[in-house]
Amino acid sequence: MSSRDTIAAFDVIDGKLAVGGIPVDRLTERIGSTPFFAYDRRLLTERIALLRRILPSSVNLSYAIKANPMPAIVQHLSSLIDSFDVASSGELRTALDTPMRPDRISFAGPAKTIAELAQAIAAGVTIELESATEARRVIDISQRFGIRPKVAIRVNPDFVIKGSGMRMGGGAQQFGVDSEAVPKLLSELNGADIDILGFHVFGGSQNLHAEILCETQRKTVELVVRLAATMPTPVRYLNLGGGFGIPYFDKDESLDLAMIGANLTELVDGPIRQQLPHVRLVIELGRYIVGECGIYVTRVVDRKMSRGKHFIMVDGGLHHQLAASGNFGQIIRRNYPLVVGNRMKMEATETVNIVGCLCTPLDLLGENVSVPKIELGDLIVLFQAGAYGLTASPNAFLGHLPAAEALV
Amino acid sequence: MSSRDTIAAFDVIDGKLAVGGIPVDRLTERIGSTPFFAYDRRLLTERIALLRRILPSSVNLSYAIKANPMPAIVQHLSSLIDSFDVASSGELRTALDTPMRPDRISFAGPAKTIAELAQAIAAGVTIELESATEARRVIDISQRFGIRPKVAIRVNPDFVIKGSGMRMGGGAQQFGVDSEAVPKLLSELNGADIDILGFHVFGGSQNLHAEILCETQRKTVELVVRLAATMPTPVRYLNLGGGFGIPYFDKDESLDLAMIGANLTELVDGPIRQQLPHVRLVIELGRYIVGECGIYVTRVVDRKMSRGKHFIMVDGGLHHQLAASGNFGQIIRRNYPLVVGNRMKMEATETVNIVGCLCTPLDLLGENVSVPKIELGDLIVLFQAGAYGLTASPNAFLGHLPAAEALV
Repeated sequence: MSSRDTIAAFDVIDGKLAVGGIPVDRLTERIGSTPFFAYDRRLLTERIALLRRILPSSVNLSYAIKANPMPAIVQHLSSLIDSFDVASSGELRTALDTPMRPDRISFAGPAKTIAELAQAIAAGVTIELESATEARRVIDISQRFGIRPKVAIRVNPDFVIKGSGMRMGGGAQQFGVDSEAVPKLLSELNGADIDILGFHVFGGSQNLHAEILCETQRKTVELVVRLAATMPTPVRYLNLGGGFGIPYFDKDESLDLAMIGANLTELVDGPIRQQLPHVRLVIELGRYIVGECGIYVTRVVDRKMSRGKHFIMVDGGLHHQLAASGNFGQIIRRNYPLVVGNRMKMEATETVNIVGCLCTPLDLLGENVSVPKIELGDLIVLFQAGAYGLTASPNAFLGHLPAAEALV
Repeated sequence: MSSRDTIAAFDVIDGKLAVGGIPVDRLTERIGSTPFFAYDRRLLTERIALLRRILPSSVNLSYAIKANPMPAIVQHLSSLIDSFDVASSGELRTALDTPMRPDRISFAGPAKTIAELAQAIAAGVTIELESATEARRVIDISQRFGIRPKVAIRVNPDFVIKGSGMRMGGGAQQFGVDSEAVPKLLSELNGADIDILGFHVFGGSQNLHAEILCETQRKTVELVVRLAATMPTPVRYLNLGGGFGIPYFDKDESLDLAMIGANLTELVDGPIRQQLPHVRLVIELGRYIVGECGIYVTRVVDRKMSRGKHFIMVDGGLHHQLAASGNFGQIIRRNYPLVVGNRMKMEATETVNIVGCLCTPLDLLGENVSVPKIELGDLIVLFQAGAYGLTASPNAFLGHLPAAEALV
């Protein structure tokens, strides 16, 4: 399993890549403009089914809206998963527009403003406290509102998770409360009229090493068992985070989900049943749910040969899909998987650079890629565009037209 | 001269940084929300005056709108400079909303769509042709419209400019027509009903080495003198590009503008007067005009100590000012200059990390910076925010509120 399987998961109809059973050229006409993002509803549903099949049934699945906040996706997922995680007032509104119960929405993130905390308390969602300041503000606001707020404590663990694309736990961090400081915070909150449900411990994202994720989950459960002893009430909520990675590049191996499922089963049947019997156990995923179900489609506008190199110019670029250009937190630029969507059955006969329409050399979408002979009007399809695509890109850069989005 | 002088260019009133004579705390109230970008009208005007003083009077100054397309800035500059450069239909509309004559607007950029070319022809602006395909499309559309279009040829030079933050000329490029292919393109265009004004040669941006910029300008003039021999009419337009850098980091030295002025004077009085006597010579600048006149202001929402490190959390972040987080095309992350805007006269007493409100460790605005003791509500000011700030950042990332912009 690798990034090649991401491509293989999509249908090919009459030699054309298809999304939701619609060949990409017809889909382009239906959407009415290029570039666009298309997300495959079937793949999204299948991904949740895969997770349900492999993870223990008592594990709750939460979708981190930050990965892709498109309302149609959030609505679709609301009937398939158990909870949402939001990171801002904007995401909170998107989540509240679904049938999801507010107490199944959690709000995490550093530097929540007083206005955001007030919104969250009024909505009745679970606030994942990132600091003592936030705790004090929540108490003040909820007193004013006459509402007993639901909170959890986001914990910065005392161990480090290796192998993550991004590390958010261990050492000194802006995220959460250091695990050794949690007992003091709990004692400060003693007597306050707030409902402390439990803990959220999240170590890092985009991890392809199942054995590291398993070890992290074990250590997290151990940590929370220790913290439980300092809680005034039984722990009813434990968000283990997620961090499940997807394969972006040729050499990436897909995550061994079976290993994670087996590990979680051991934890559920062992320490959790014995020592955290009242807990609602949550795995929170964003990228792993939506990342592979989405493509970015952009049309070839021009091509030229410059000093021996073929350049294919498209009407899209890094203003829609920054990560694919290698300019968002990556150290080394590597190509995301891509195809010529209307030439799926043709042999590769040329090596080209595929570049976006922006006036900057950073706008490189494919370097030295092997493709069938490309003509003007062809549709270039970039994969792994379902998560951290459109919203994680500088859409206003250079004043080009926005990209459409479709859930098909 | 260095990035410290950028800070010194702003007024300090009652111990507070001021923009346009208004202390930052009052400005915040006037704008009504944080975070925001503020641009200083006086500094903008002074920057143009500096360029006018040092560059030869026959040189036309063009503003590349991509650097900052805020309409108020573009309007203000329209009476101070000679021409605009646009890179998209959106920027074209912004430019056309000013009193600037359309024939003083040039449209450059790879992968211009047929729709964009049609807009540009209808508007009567100068189209900088990036390829033979674009030339053919311009001829087709202008025949259909019955308009004789103004064009220039963007040339990819046969030399490489060193020391640029980004290189866009020399070697194989998506930008422009290879210089050795220009004569063939000109002969193909022979007889077509288009007005070929001249050439645009742009080698790279954000260059702090005046001697390299001077050499580039000399080589460019030599190249265009050679190309002029293959033109059917005298060269009436030569856009030398710009590439003038600004100092972002402590060790950066400001550009030696006097050296560039002297070099341009030699070129104007020598080869240009002798061999390109009809030319309108253009220096096109974006970042150099607006970059240092802008600040990004964000409010402190929380602070915490995590395992011995002080973290200051603000309500802004990389979704508004990506470059300051080091995640847009930079290899090594370095701090942009910053101050606590309401504590300008206080001594630095602590070392902190200043982080944004996004749920990602990438959202780091200041690492190990020395600041006066910071309290909740303080206003952090990041400098060098006038160019490639808001529009070059992933504004929709994580669904936070947008940043306001003000020209003061």
